[in-house]
Amino acid sequence: MTDDERGRWSDRDGNGRRTVPPAGAGDRSMATFMDVHSGFVGVTEQQLKEAHERDTAIEAEEGVRFERAWLDPESGKVFCLSHGPSRESVMRIHERAGHPTAEVYEVTVEVA
Amino acid sequence: MTDDERGRWSDRDGNGRRTVPPAGAGDRSMATFMDVHSGFVGVTEQQLKEAHERDTAIEAEEGVRFERAWLDPESGKVFCLSHGPSRESVMRIHERAGHPTAEVYEVTVEVA
Repeated sequence: MTDDERGRWSDRDGNGRRTVPPAGAGDRSMATFMDVHSGFVGVTEQQLKEAHERDTAIEAEEGVRFERAWLDPESGKVFCLSHGPSRESVMRIHERAGHPTAEVYEVTVEVA
Repeated sequence: MTDDERGRWSDRDGNGRRTVPPAGAGDRSMATFMDVHSGFVGVTEQQLKEAHERDTAIEAEEGVRFERAWLDPESGKVFCLSHGPSRESVMRIHERAGHPTAEVYEVTVEVA
């Protein structure tokens, strides 16, 4: 993946000088996390979007980047894929955004 | 997403005639599932890859397509994202591949 594909910032300013990316972004040593939330029974797409935006609005403060989130409104489960420096950083963002969870797994292996 | 991006088959044969995709593939009405497996403590990347390949080798027989899988070898949790016609179809593939789970959630809402 190139910096351009990552698409979060440009690593060159207008004069071609290398600039510093935001904390955590683009750091290939960042870990990947899957977290699980319960109790979202009957939640709508709009409500999930709003909850997710409360996370993404403050994610940079902990160097976290949320990638995707999935909801099963019948069971009330939400799965959330993120990248960040630590499990605790993801937990802090979720807690401050109003939907704390202790179920945050560091997924060190991925296959596709 | 175009058929080419989906990358599982060509919908044109060598003469430019439209061909029929495999059952379930490319059907935009297919559902999306996240499933959770437990007990994969200490499993390696190679072992996860082999387990995943046992799924993908037979996925087409149920019209299922596995997209990504993530492992936390410390807790032993595996999360698996797939598309298919039903929850049962995903469960049948996992069962036949040797790693059954009842925890298959239909995720009807996704945000990114």
